[in-house]
Amino acid sequence: MPADVAFLQAAHCHRPSHTPVWFMRQAGRSLPEYRSVRGEGSILQAIKVPEIAAAITLQPVHRYGVDAAVLYSDIVVPAHAVGFGIDVAPGTGPVVEHPLRSHADLARLRPLDAEHDTDYVVQTVRLLAAELPVDVPLLAFAGAPFTVASYLIEGRPSRTYEHTKQLMHTDPATWHALMERLVQHSVAFISAQLRAGAGAFQVFDSWAGALSRVDYDRFVLPHSRSVFEQLGTWHPGTPGIHFGIGCDHLLESMLDAAQGHGHGTPVLGLDWRTPISEARRRMGAGLVVQGNLDPALVLAGMATALEGTDTVLADNVLTDGTRHPGHIFNLGHGVQPETDPGVLAAVVAHVHEVTATELGTGS
Amino acid sequence: MPADVAFLQAAHCHRPSHTPVWFMRQAGRSLPEYRSVRGEGSILQAIKVPEIAAAITLQPVHRYGVDAAVLYSDIVVPAHAVGFGIDVAPGTGPVVEHPLRSHADLARLRPLDAEHDTDYVVQTVRLLAAELPVDVPLLAFAGAPFTVASYLIEGRPSRTYEHTKQLMHTDPATWHALMERLVQHSVAFISAQLRAGAGAFQVFDSWAGALSRVDYDRFVLPHSRSVFEQLGTWHPGTPGIHFGIGCDHLLESMLDAAQGHGHGTPVLGLDWRTPISEARRRMGAGLVVQGNLDPALVLAGMATALEGTDTVLADNVLTDGTRHPGHIFNLGHGVQPETDPGVLAAVVAHVHEVTATELGTGS
Repeated sequence: MPADVAFLQAAHCHRPSHTPVWFMRQAGRSLPEYRSVRGEGSILQAIKVPEIAAAITLQPVHRYGVDAAVLYSDIVVPAHAVGFGIDVAPGTGPVVEHPLRSHADLARLRPLDAEHDTDYVVQTVRLLAAELPVDVPLLAFAGAPFTVASYLIEGRPSRTYEHTKQLMHTDPATWHALMERLVQHSVAFISAQLRAGAGAFQVFDSWAGALSRVDYDRFVLPHSRSVFEQLGTWHPGTPGIHFGIGCDHLLESMLDAAQGHGHGTPVLGLDWRTPISEARRRMGAGLVVQGNLDPALVLAGMATALEGTDTVLADNVLTDGTRHPGHIFNLGHGVQPETDPGVLAAVVAHVHEVTATELGTGS
Repeated sequence: MPADVAFLQAAHCHRPSHTPVWFMRQAGRSLPEYRSVRGEGSILQAIKVPEIAAAITLQPVHRYGVDAAVLYSDIVVPAHAVGFGIDVAPGTGPVVEHPLRSHADLARLRPLDAEHDTDYVVQTVRLLAAELPVDVPLLAFAGAPFTVASYLIEGRPSRTYEHTKQLMHTDPATWHALMERLVQHSVAFISAQLRAGAGAFQVFDSWAGALSRVDYDRFVLPHSRSVFEQLGTWHPGTPGIHFGIGCDHLLESMLDAAQGHGHGTPVLGLDWRTPISEARRRMGAGLVVQGNLDPALVLAGMATALEGTDTVLADNVLTDGTRHPGHIFNLGHGVQPETDPGVLAAVVAHVHEVTATELGTGS
């Protein structure tokens, strides 16, 4: 690992030259250059053209100078690629014509052969590995089994996850069989991206916060742990981030799941509901975290965004006045489409400037 | 207070004859007898006929034998009643034609004269006070200032509350002026219901969980505390419940706000993300709580609902094997429209049977 790759240094809790920063959903609708190349229709079609997917992935790297690229992709890509019957409706999100409700529906979820079924993703990663600056790793990502399952089962955006919870409680055999299939998808999808040149990965369990911790531990944790364990076996030393929204009450369990990964310190993604200092008080002073500026504060304009940025950075300062090395700056959720790219650019510059001054070790 | 009113006994942490139970949104779309009297159109029109609103409020009391009635009403009633320009669209929720975005918009929020502006609500409460069984108190309710503000500002359902957060951060003077007006609405609305015969109240800050605790403490807590303080002054000894969804990270602050109420122990509403025992570990062994069965488990059928009920009841059992007296059984969110009333009836019977056996003091 090159000593000057800030993202990897922070992920391994080695003191980086500056606090690295990237944004979930940094590649996408908030950028005018994205809208000019993207065209209409589902993201699932757009990402099938590697040159376009790679160009979109590079756009925020060029514009913002972020410390990591994140593949332009979607968490339902594996289920789509095996022919389950799922699409992403622009403005709505994942939609399923025939939602998964019974054991028989599992037949539509065959194992993912990532090199074949998602060859376009592998090609995109190869293009990016050749084009990205050496100090900007590419992040692979996949959905965690629970969040992907919730899309397949609900069939449309949900606030209650009632069908998902019904299946796990009333037919646990089908539930666990489903989760095992989705573990294979997550692992195969991320692993193929890592083999093609991605340098780290993130597992999105975006909606796990809808569960009580008892239900998370019983129905989800073993499967998410399996994802991290398998990736740790195949890709030792590769940083892995575990992230969900509104998961404050689940963080200890999500860290537990990520510790299955054999790379040393796992990275825990936080949203703005959990202060960084509070997370370290709960889970240990050595905790490596990613986050956690409220994306709504970025929408509120330059002054509010930079004030919020300072609050997040201050939350990572230890009692002796030094910054904790294990912090990757990010939003606490994805970039909203209406976000002003100029504000995000200012946030990146501000994080770099403030933290380079204080952490700088020279280069 | 009659010694045999289980709801009031539990709210005051005196040992009740059984654990009292009611359900948020128990009056409404899940009941066929509701659908037969309700007619079409906005709830804001339906509640203007006191005989209909009272009949709807009584339906779940008769069907389920719950220990409290909750007024059939809506948290946007005060803003509607003063002519702000808000309606409730069936299937969507509150919608505002001209959302509140600037100081000038405050002119549309004059003070609420509850006896006059919402005379139909006062009449409904009077009807109910005469008709309800003596051991079934009527709960008044209102929205907390933050949640009502979020409806007025966003103008339609939101997941991000971006305009609300923008206003509080970029124009705090307007924000606090707005909150002060909404404090007056909440207090006047609840107080009128209590004077007309309601026996307790609940303040819904349903969406406060979207905020970080720092922002809650700065922009919301003083106003919610003012609501509880004023009601405590005017109605000493009347139990008040403070409830939000996904507020696990805010509970200490929400309890703080409710402690402004001068009735002794405030009641903290919990959703299923916070175990009852964990809440008492964090906030004190004497904490009186309401909750917290996941409504999705009720949708999952009889066996799952009763299993979940037992889990909640067990979470209220102390290490010496006795039940904590300060527990009002409820769901962790409102009843979903598709809920089977037969399952809710069974939950009520089960809570009564299990807890009367163990707590019973004779009658």
